[in-house]
Amino acid sequence: MTALPAPLDLNADLGEGYGDWSMGDDAAMLDVVTTANVACGGHAGGPGTMRAATRAAADRSVVITAHVAYPDLQGFGRRFLDIAPADLVDQVVVQVGGLQAMARAAGTTVRGVKPHGALYSAIAHHEGQAGAVVQALTEFGGDLPLVAAPGAVVVDLAQKAGIDVVLEGFADRAYLRDGTLMPRSRVGAVLTDPEAVAAQALQIATEQRVRADDGSWIALPARSLCLHGDTPGAVELARAVRSTLESAGVLLEAAL
Amino acid sequence: MTALPAPLDLNADLGEGYGDWSMGDDAAMLDVVTTANVACGGHAGGPGTMRAATRAAADRSVVITAHVAYPDLQGFGRRFLDIAPADLVDQVVVQVGGLQAMARAAGTTVRGVKPHGALYSAIAHHEGQAGAVVQALTEFGGDLPLVAAPGAVVVDLAQKAGIDVVLEGFADRAYLRDGTLMPRSRVGAVLTDPEAVAAQALQIATEQRVRADDGSWIALPARSLCLHGDTPGAVELARAVRSTLESAGVLLEAAL
Amino acid sequence: MTALPAPLDLNADLGEGYGDWSMGDDAAMLDVVTTANVACGGHAGGPGTMRAATRAAADRSVVITAHVAYPDLQGFGRRFLDIAPADLVDQVVVQVGGLQAMARAAGTTVRGVKPHGALYSAIAHHEGQAGAVVQALTEFGGDLPLVAAPGAVVVDLAQKAGIDVVLEGFADRAYLRDGTLMPRSRVGAVLTDPEAVAAQALQIATEQRVRADDGSWIALPARSLCLHGDTPGAVELARAVRSTLESAGVLLEAAL
Amino acid sequence: MTALPAPLDLNADLGEGYGDWSMGDDAAMLDVVTTANVACGGHAGGPGTMRAATRAAADRSVVITAHVAYPDLQGFGRRFLDIAPADLVDQVVVQVGGLQAMARAAGTTVRGVKPHGALYSAIAHHEGQAGAVVQALTEFGGDLPLVAAPGAVVVDLAQKAGIDVVLEGFADRAYLRDGTLMPRSRVGAVLTDPEAVAAQALQIATEQRVRADDGSWIALPARSLCLHGDTPGAVELARAVRSTLESAGVLLEAAL
Repeated sequence: MTALPAPLDLNADLGEGYGDWSMGDDAAMLDVVTTANVACGGHAGGPGTMRAATRAAADRSVVITAHVAYPDLQGFGRRFLDIAPADLVDQVVVQVGGLQAMARAAGTTVRGVKPHGALYSAIAHHEGQAGAVVQALTEFGGDLPLVAAPGAVVVDLAQKAGIDVVLEGFADRAYLRDGTLMPRSRVGAVLTDPEAVAAQALQIATEQRVRADDGSWIALPARSLCLHGDTPGAVELARAVRSTLESAGVLLEAAL
Repeated sequence: MTALPAPLDLNADLGEGYGDWSMGDDAAMLDVVTTANVACGGHAGGPGTMRAATRAAADRSVVITAHVAYPDLQGFGRRFLDIAPADLVDQVVVQVGGLQAMARAAGTTVRGVKPHGALYSAIAHHEGQAGAVVQALTEFGGDLPLVAAPGAVVVDLAQKAGIDVVLEGFADRAYLRDGTLMPRSRVGAVLTDPEAVAAQALQIATEQRVRADDGSWIALPARSLCLHGDTPGAVELARAVRSTLESAGVLLEAAL
Repeated sequence: MTALPAPLDLNADLGEGYGDWSMGDDAAMLDVVTTANVACGGHAGGPGTMRAATRAAADRSVVITAHVAYPDLQGFGRRFLDIAPADLVDQVVVQVGGLQAMARAAGTTVRGVKPHGALYSAIAHHEGQAGAVVQALTEFGGDLPLVAAPGAVVVDLAQKAGIDVVLEGFADRAYLRDGTLMPRSRVGAVLTDPEAVAAQALQIATEQRVRADDGSWIALPARSLCLHGDTPGAVELARAVRSTLESAGVLLEAAL
Repeated sequence: MTALPAPLDLNADLGEGYGDWSMGDDAAMLDVVTTANVACGGHAGGPGTMRAATRAAADRSVVITAHVAYPDLQGFGRRFLDIAPADLVDQVVVQVGGLQAMARAAGTTVRGVKPHGALYSAIAHHEGQAGAVVQALTEFGGDLPLVAAPGAVVVDLAQKAGIDVVLEGFADRAYLRDGTLMPRSRVGAVLTDPEAVAAQALQIATEQRVRADDGSWIALPARSLCLHGDTPGAVELARAVRSTLESAGVLLEAAL
């Protein structure tokens, strides 16, 4: 007799437009995911997109996290910024606070925090910046969970500070033997074959492991799966992942 | 037998630096005022200045309002922007929300909202923008009071929406017969003589009236007095006003 | 025997993305127009889009103008900003200068200046801002022509200052009896029927007049026709206009 | 018989305000230096400060360089940004181009380029970013010289590309044995004793060497000396340096 797989959260980054500019297909992705990471002014997301995204998520009962980022609209938060930890704490506090107010205006709340882009990568190893993110969460009272990658330095720091952490995996990214993502600059870093993506999603959901690029199996204890909606074909891929998981009896449920 | 004058609030705009740039002498003004209007990213005020200003205000038990403004750092929020009311609502929500989070991190709270500069002037007559500010306050639950000028369109709209309003006067600005401020472009718009400023402050505090530029008396039912700290000699003038009011037995006390 | 129609310029606004955000289909429009108005950082357009747009225009021998705007990325330059004329002069100088440098790097040059959005509308009647645009052009030596609407205040001021002006018309906008565009807020302001748009284009090209909303004919001495590429179906409409004009024997040729 | 010392350039960073915010005492420094590095919108410097600084420099016949920087107003360009080289090229082109236009409007020209803050530090060793700065200068035709530190990677790359380089030293910074500046984070990194600063300036001017922190002498073939004007006492220190150099018969003359 096989145990049922644990419930899985599906998350995606939304509200990543700015002013008159849009990015991705938020409406379509909201039908796929259970959690929306809403941009809050760092890498993307002005007051208008924050309202639209929080309202749309609330309408579909999709959970909201604050998708905090380096203050770098021009670079979409995708390039490392050597910001002082104290300044990073302030950034995170103000970005989350702005989104909290907008979420309340939309009749919902921010249920967690997920760092974006280069900040997400940095806090996997940069102790000062990882500590700053944890410090900001502590200043919010410590009851806003963090979404992060297994093995990241920030995970340890958060748990020591009493912050809940939701670990996440990626269905469409190749993993290295040490459990980190293959850098995007390498060939094969992003999976585009629908069957391969669905298979990796299913392994994470049901076996809590993935096959690394060298063929070895690595443990991936992820409670959430990150899907992308901002590239051509991404929405279809996300739908395929959801369909595969549902067919396999995986319960899709927000983690926060 | 004379009745004691009502308590008076003294407010000033603080935290108006940005990044490495500073503006005015916040520390000095915090010893003079009972309420600090803290810039929250519209016309001035980055995350760092928001932390510094809220913490300093909290240390001195000075009450904090969110000094919301048009999104116009280059113009310091001093030029009219024909922003759509719906977009203005969003701006106010996010600006106030960011400051609320920072205030909580500093162990205090935002107790009200005071629009800045050209927005302050616009909502004295522009119904769409005045309504937007009121709408934003309603979205915060309606219990954040508004600081505004007597006679402004926004005052009526706020009161109809059940929002408390704190009326304020200016000790160092000349008034016209209709109760509005003389435009800064006119000679004599700003009072610089310490005795004249102190006298006008005292009239507002004890008689709730000022003499207009044509010599007539006009009613000025102000619960708060706005002082400036960002021009040469301003801090000294502010101290003189406070001293004059204290000598006259006026109780200085935050309005919020 | 009928005289040949005068050559006509077709212009469109390009390079209106910012960072990772894009807007419209620049490549498609470059095959339709003879002049590209390239955003230069006011309402849109970062250094990267400025390079891409100037290079693409140069590759197709499309003439470049600087599409200067209010400094308002959040509002895409579409809302009036009461900027002081002296500050507006500085904005225009820096925006044009940045694009000039990029155009030279791409092996081409900026051949004129076309104000964008709310600034374009303002200088039709706002003397201070219109004078500021002319002053900026004068500071460039007076040999950069201005693209503007017939009847705009800025046209007179520019001509008095010795600045060449290229008058432009719109194939897809309804005109009022006084020669101004019907405000976008009114029903019928934007023409979407391909035949109506092509017909109006042809009237402007061959008869230098259009029918106003009240049925009367008004003179429209336009040397250039503005096409739009940033709405659904816009590219097809633009192609249809070009095709109609070519079939009628109108010579399409840059005005600058 | 002793040879006369070679002429020396004195440079300082000016125009580092933004909007209503100011930084340092530009007027005072313009009486001390022979070259002004004018901020052009990256770390500081809006169109208004660019006009004020270029005009003031032109009035005093002070030479102008473009003080290009990472796009980071909030961090004043003082934190490393991992910007892609291609994006950095675009930044430099647009920043220099904007200042060139303003300089021409003020009746003068930009005579060179000096990177600011963290970018200045990065191109001492980061080949990609150093190459990007050189590429931008090449796109300007190769006749805008670069101001840089002796030994920096960018110096080699520039010279190979045929770009003239002006080497500069610092009178008020401690040097390490390898010829680099002691990081600001270390005690003793910034010299504040007027006699020590003047002595180091004189050694650079007349002997082309300085004493490193370990007591050894290192060669410092600097044609220009960088002075600071944005800290308390900085203007006085700068005046003292100039006075010492003049007394020693050093000819103060712009290098560009």
